[in-house]
Formats: sequence, C-alpha cells, structure tokens
Amino acid sequence: MSQATNTFVEQNQERLLEELKQFLRIPSVSTLPEHAGDIRRAAQFVADSLKGAGLENVEIIPTAKHPLVYGDWLHAPGKPTVLCYGHYDVQPPDPLHEWISPPFEPTLRGGNLYARGSADDKGQMYMHIKAVEALRAVNGTLPVNLKFLIEGEEEVGGESVAKYVAENPAKLKADVALVSDTELFAEGLPTLCVGLRGLIYTEIEARGPSRDLHSGMYGGAAPNAVYGLVELLSKLKDENGVIQIPGMYDDVAPPDPAEKESWSALPFDEKEFLDREVGSTRLTGEPGYPVLERVWARPTLEVHGIAGGFTGAGAKTVIPARATAKVSMRMVPDQDPEKIIAAYKKFVQDHTPAGIETEVRILSAGRAISVNPNHPAIHVAAESFRDVMGKDTVFIRSGGSIPIVGDFAKYLGIPTILMGFGLPDDGLHSPNEKYKLANYYSGIMTIAHFFEQYGKAPYGQ
Amino acid sequence: MSQATNTFVEQNQERLLEELKQFLRIPSVSTLPEHAGDIRRAAQFVADSLKGAGLENVEIIPTAKHPLVYGDWLHAPGKPTVLCYGHYDVQPPDPLHEWISPPFEPTLRGGNLYARGSADDKGQMYMHIKAVEALRAVNGTLPVNLKFLIEGEEEVGGESVAKYVAENPAKLKADVALVSDTELFAEGLPTLCVGLRGLIYTEIEARGPSRDLHSGMYGGAAPNAVYGLVELLSKLKDENGVIQIPGMYDDVAPPDPAEKESWSALPFDEKEFLDREVGSTRLTGEPGYPVLERVWARPTLEVHGIAGGFTGAGAKTVIPARATAKVSMRMVPDQDPEKIIAAYKKFVQDHTPAGIETEVRILSAGRAISVNPNHPAIHVAAESFRDVMGKDTVFIRSGGSIPIVGDFAKYLGIPTILMGFGLPDDGLHSPNEKYKLANYYSGIMTIAHFFEQYGKAPYGQ
Repeated sequence: MSQATNTFVEQNQERLLEELKQFLRIPSVSTLPEHAGDIRRAAQFVADSLKGAGLENVEIIPTAKHPLVYGDWLHAPGKPTVLCYGHYDVQPPDPLHEWISPPFEPTLRGGNLYARGSADDKGQMYMHIKAVEALRAVNGTLPVNLKFLIEGEEEVGGESVAKYVAENPAKLKADVALVSDTELFAEGLPTLCVGLRGLIYTEIEARGPSRDLHSGMYGGAAPNAVYGLVELLSKLKDENGVIQIPGMYDDVAPPDPAEKESWSALPFDEKEFLDREVGSTRLTGEPGYPVLERVWARPTLEVHGIAGGFTGAGAKTVIPARATAKVSMRMVPDQDPEKIIAAYKKFVQDHTPAGIETEVRILSAGRAISVNPNHPAIHVAAESFRDVMGKDTVFIRSGGSIPIVGDFAKYLGIPTILMGFGLPDDGLHSPNEKYKLANYYSGIMTIAHFFEQYGKAPYGQ
Repeated sequence: MSQATNTFVEQNQERLLEELKQFLRIPSVSTLPEHAGDIRRAAQFVADSLKGAGLENVEIIPTAKHPLVYGDWLHAPGKPTVLCYGHYDVQPPDPLHEWISPPFEPTLRGGNLYARGSADDKGQMYMHIKAVEALRAVNGTLPVNLKFLIEGEEEVGGESVAKYVAENPAKLKADVALVSDTELFAEGLPTLCVGLRGLIYTEIEARGPSRDLHSGMYGGAAPNAVYGLVELLSKLKDENGVIQIPGMYDDVAPPDPAEKESWSALPFDEKEFLDREVGSTRLTGEPGYPVLERVWARPTLEVHGIAGGFTGAGAKTVIPARATAKVSMRMVPDQDPEKIIAAYKKFVQDHTPAGIETEVRILSAGRAISVNPNHPAIHVAAESFRDVMGKDTVFIRSGGSIPIVGDFAKYLGIPTILMGFGLPDDGLHSPNEKYKLANYYSGIMTIAHFFEQYGKAPYGQ
C-alpha cells in the first residue's frame, strides 16, 4: 500500500469534500423531464473532473436520452486496462418533507454527508476519478491503463449506455470493469459483490368506465378501475410473497452450498436489520429461506406505486375510470427476462377482472449477474481491500440490479469488480440518503491501491 | 296550472339563464381549502338571490365549516309550510383536461348548459328561488309559507347543516321539505324519488417500513405498504362485488314486490345504460339482481381513489412506506351505520397483512332513507308534475345519498319531496357535467305549480 497516495488524500481532505459537494448540488434526477438541464450540467461536471485528473480524449457523447461521458489514459503498455463505470444521475428526492436537510444541499452530520446521490452513485464513482488524481499527483504516471465510461440513465434503465457498449466493443476493450455502486456488508468489513439480481420494470394501466362515474348512481353495476387493478395486483403474490405467475421459479438456480455456508457466517442480525433498516413491525417473505437468501437469491415482485381516482383531502364519491401501478420483478440466475415477461403479461391478461381493460408497458429488463470469485482481478481486488481495511474480504451478493454488468460480460467479455463503500443504512432511494465521509476517503485510497497492485500482477492471467 | 307563471318564465328566459350562469361561475368546491373564498362568495350570491325573490329574514349563518343561508316568507296563514333545501357547493372538477369547456365557464351546447354544479345542485336549487320570484311577480303574493335552508357542505358530508337542523327544530318547522337534487328517470318522464341509499365514507392508511426502501436491497424481506393495502382492499369484495364484511347483508330490507314490479315497467335499456352512461366493456355486480335493484336496493362498496409510492413518469424502485385509499359503503333500509362501521373496522384489522399497520378514518356516515309515497304532499307533487309534463309520475329510488333527508325526518318529523329535473347522462361528479336548459325552465314552472296546488289542498292532511 502506497503511503504517498494515502498522505495525498489526507492532506487534500477539505478540497476533495468541497468538490464532491459541488457535484452533489446538481439535481440530476434522470426520470423527471424538468431536470434535463441539470443532467447536462452533471455530465459537464464529470467531463471537467476527468480532464482535471489527467484523463485524455474526454468527450460528452450525446445519446437518445442522457449523455455519456468518456475519457481514457492508455500510456501503460504491457499493463492491464481497467474500465471504470459509474453514473451521475440520481433518484427523485420525494417525499421531500422527510429530508432533514435539503436533498441537493449536501450537509455533514455525525461524520456522514447527507445528499441525494451521496452514496448512489455520485460519491462512489467520484472516488475513481480522485484515485487517478492522487496517483498522478504522487507518481506522475498511472500503474494501469484506464478507460472511464460514466452514464446518466442508470436510475431509469440505462438503455443508452447498453446500446453504446454493444456498438463500441473495440473502443471499450479492457481486462476488467470496476464499479463502485454497492456497499460494505458491515462497517469496516471489506466486501466484494459477486452477484446481482436482474430487474424487469413495468407499468400496468387499468381502464373501467369511459369517465369517472357517481358512485351512488352507478355503484353496484359499473366496474371500478381502481378496484379492478387492486384485484389484479392482489393475485400476483400470495400472503407470504410467493409469486403466483406460472413458471416464475422454474429456472431459479439455487446458490451453491459453499456460498450459502459463507452467508451464514456473515455478521447479520435480523432484529437489527428490522429495527434499524426496515423499521416495520416484522419482516415478511418466503417461509423457509433466511433473510439474506430472500433478498439475494430469490425472485421478488414489488408494487412501487399506485395512483387512481380521487386522492385529495376530504371526500369525492367517484367510480374511477383509470388507475395505474408501477410493478417490478427481481430475477436471479438463470431466469430469462423474456420468458418472465411473457408469463407476466399472460397472467395480467388472464386475471384482469370483468369489465376492466389492462395494458402492460415494459420500461426495462435486465438479467441477473454472477461474477466468478476466482478471476485474477477479483483476487487482486480482494487483497487490496484487505490491505487497506485490515480484515479479510467477504464475498456477498446484492439484491439490487446493475444491468451494465451484464452488458460488459456480454459485449466485452470481461468480469466486473463490484467494489463498493456504501453502508447498509445509507438510505439509497430514500429520504436522507447519506455517505460516510471516512468511506469516501478510504475508498479513494483502496481504489488507488488496487490500481497499483493490479499493475504489478502478472498480466494476462 | 297557472299560465301566467309559465308566461313569466318564457318571457324572462334570457335573464334567468344569465343569472344561473353567474352562480355557476363561482368555483365553490367545498372539499378543497383553497376555495374557501369562493364558498363565501357563493353563499352571498344565494343570500342576494333569496332577497331578490322577496324572501325575508335572509341570513348567512356561520358554522364550523361552510356557511348556511336561510330565508323565509310566512304570510300565508292557514296554509302549509314548505322547507326548500339545496346546496351551493360542488364537487372538484378534476380531471380538468377532460372538460370540453372550462368547468366554471358555463357554456351552452346542444340545448345543454355545461358547468360543474349545473345539475348538482346549483341549477336545481336555483329553480326554487326563481319559482318564488315568478309567483310573486304574477300574483304579488305566495300560495304557501316558505322556508329556505341552503348549505355549502353537501359534497363533504354536510355536518354543519345536520347540526343546525338538530338544534333549530322550531325555526325550521314545516309540513314538508322540498329537494331538487335528483333526476328524471328518462327525458320527459315525471319522476319522484322515494328512496335513497345511505353512505359511510372512509379513508384507510397503511404503513409498512419507516421510510421508502430500495426494492433491490430489501425486496423479499420488507413489507410493502402499497401491496399491503392492495391485499387488504382485495378482500373486501369477491369477484362479483359481494361485500365480504361479516353481517353486511343481515339487515338489508328487500323492496316490496309491488315496488319491484313497478321498476320492471320502467323504460330501462341495459345496453344503452352500458354504452351511453357507463362506457366499459360490461356491467358488473351481484348475480341474480336486476341492474336497478343493484344500484337502488343493494349495499355496495367502492374504492374512490388510491395513492402511494412513486407514481411519476418513468421508474423508481422503492418499497413504499405509506399508502392511502378512500373507501365508501352505500347502505339500504334498514342497515345501521354504526353496526356497519364496527364490522368494517374489525374486518380491516383482521385482514391487515403481516408487517403492515392500518388506520381507518370515518369521514361521514348517514343511513338510507325511504319516503311514504302515500303522503298527501307527495300526492300533490306527483299530480303537479303530471300536469306540467303530461305523463303519469313514476316513483323510483336513487342509489345516491342525501343525508339531510334523514335529518328532516328525525328532527323535524317531516317527509321530503325529492323532485329533481336532472337526466341520467348529466355526468354528476364527472367531467362535462351538464343540465338540460329546457328542464331548468320547466322545473321552475313545475315547482311554482306545486306551490300553488299545495296551497289549495286541504291543510292538515
């Protein structure tokens, strides 16, 4: 481990924080059209940061939706090439009134930096850029070849980057990809993620009468779009959360016994998980599966939102004409998204109540990922992590989805190191998202150390 | 029938329309706090109109919520007294984009006056005032004693007028109440409504995790407030609309055979009802009951609106912390609202899924009403109606609810004549609500004729 880069980080703490705050102040919410200008500003900020760190050929690449940012440094012949990926877009901040400090005014409290995107993913992807800056400041050069590809649509399906990767395999050729968009299993515990669930995100619209009707005049004879949607959605899962779509579990690959064994050794406290993270009266889910297996290795279905009819203050006696719901399914290896989508659409059609018409829209679909923990780059990453944090690295999965990892495997033929520095209670996608400031600094150190170690490893393995 | 009052109405058509339009331009939406000022303007408009028609002791009566308007004329000794009731508040106009002309800019198209409140109830209650004006213009006096009580909370439960009626029986003492807030069964068919369903309006709030959670990280183990609410609501009715709350049908009084017989003779075309009014692919409801019986004489339960989680454009992968739904039940004679509320609350508690907490709020509750069709005032009303429209009056029920009718029976001991001039396709509570202009004029004539005939009837019967 290079003491010099660590010292550089320590001496520049204040500036490194101030620059990240500038980045976090840009409300680059990718799903809301009114933030299109902020998305462009965030892309420009990334491009400027890459140039500032010494990367070359920096470009902002227009797409059908939000721009990509690319940059590279290719002056380490005979050394491996790392493709660094991250995203500069963030989730919407609502419900706004639940934030203690404003979501786009980064605020330090108790050693944590509170802001939308602080952990997911601005704070983490920015560490890659700052690791490059530290190495160049200390050594005047870099130990590996580097390519950066940063996108602005991760929270809305990432179609543009997927298309770009598929169409530019030569330009993006590398030995391994590096992504910091995951978390440590516990504070101070070096963690590599070797599995991600896939995601199919959909919208269901239900239509009943041609207009909202008076419930006194028509109640008892007219179909109700809200109730029709409720009846349909209620059939998707049983009371234990078991998905009722035929064939849903047919191709589910169970984790191998060694992997399951390693999970049971992880420092996981179910009561603490319930009380500190979930905050409900009890946990739910499929009987017979431990919590980590339920969220990492089992398919799930969630309704993210529902809207229809009158929802203002007070009373309005309508039979609503329309209603919509956002519904997603998480998939595990070896489930095929196309097969699941077909079964889902058929289920919705078969269970649409009489008098109601439904339409299903597929917003995005990406399959589950697993990374071979025996790949040499993963080994170097695990060792670098251990060197900086002083504990053996654990291998876990994540219940979340990073579709680009599948595209790197498919189009570039490379594995991805999922080396994240978030913490389980960071509140991704929730109000009061935060990132532990100490992890921002140690993340920069760890990534710089990984670049150095990977540059020393025998190339070609 | 007095030709003189009819001639007065015909000669003043333009002015009578213009004055109604002024009334309809006031957006007196009682459920939305931002319209409090419009509510006050509408109350003032009613007070001014009563004075203009020659009513005395006109006052705007403050209440805990929206003001009442009172006025009387008591110079017909030995003649009966009619209590005229109506409401100046209206339903919210949303969804706004579905209106062809703006909801608060009354517009004539094809003989219909389009505006929120044109039929429900401004256009109808205003006929009472204009009938008084016509009679006084023609005769210089009135054939009966009159009291007017107009409220501004009918669309939000009508608590203030209920309290006022309970507390002021001497002031409001009358022989019969007259309400025009119902409809003709078919165009040109004189119709008296002798039954109304009761209404219990509620809100259910469901809470799951303490904050919105990332569905990747927690999906499979954390309860989802939206899905929990969906599961609960889906259990309230079976696929035929039969309510599953224990005891719901215990006290339902079936209509007597003669009344059912008369309904089957009404000009009702199920296909036209479906195509022209409901506009869905098919009708729904309890098997074995004709449509009119389902909407007039059977209890029903409707979900008027539902909201929770992310419902903007695009994708957000949250497990929602909260969700709410507006749920109402319509009751028929002899159901007891208190008994139904208790059973409903218990059902919600018993069927709340694991990990979810629910809260039920009761927004209003009023029992079903039936009026004796053999009451002398009802007889006079039926004959007056027949005289003006040239057809025998039919007796029907309405699936809607007018709670004040129950209060008149309970606190004043009087029946209510439900003599409405709306049409089945008026679109109450829907976009493009309208009132047939010809019915506005013939309504004024019919009410004036009723006052004259009731004044001639032997008093005391």
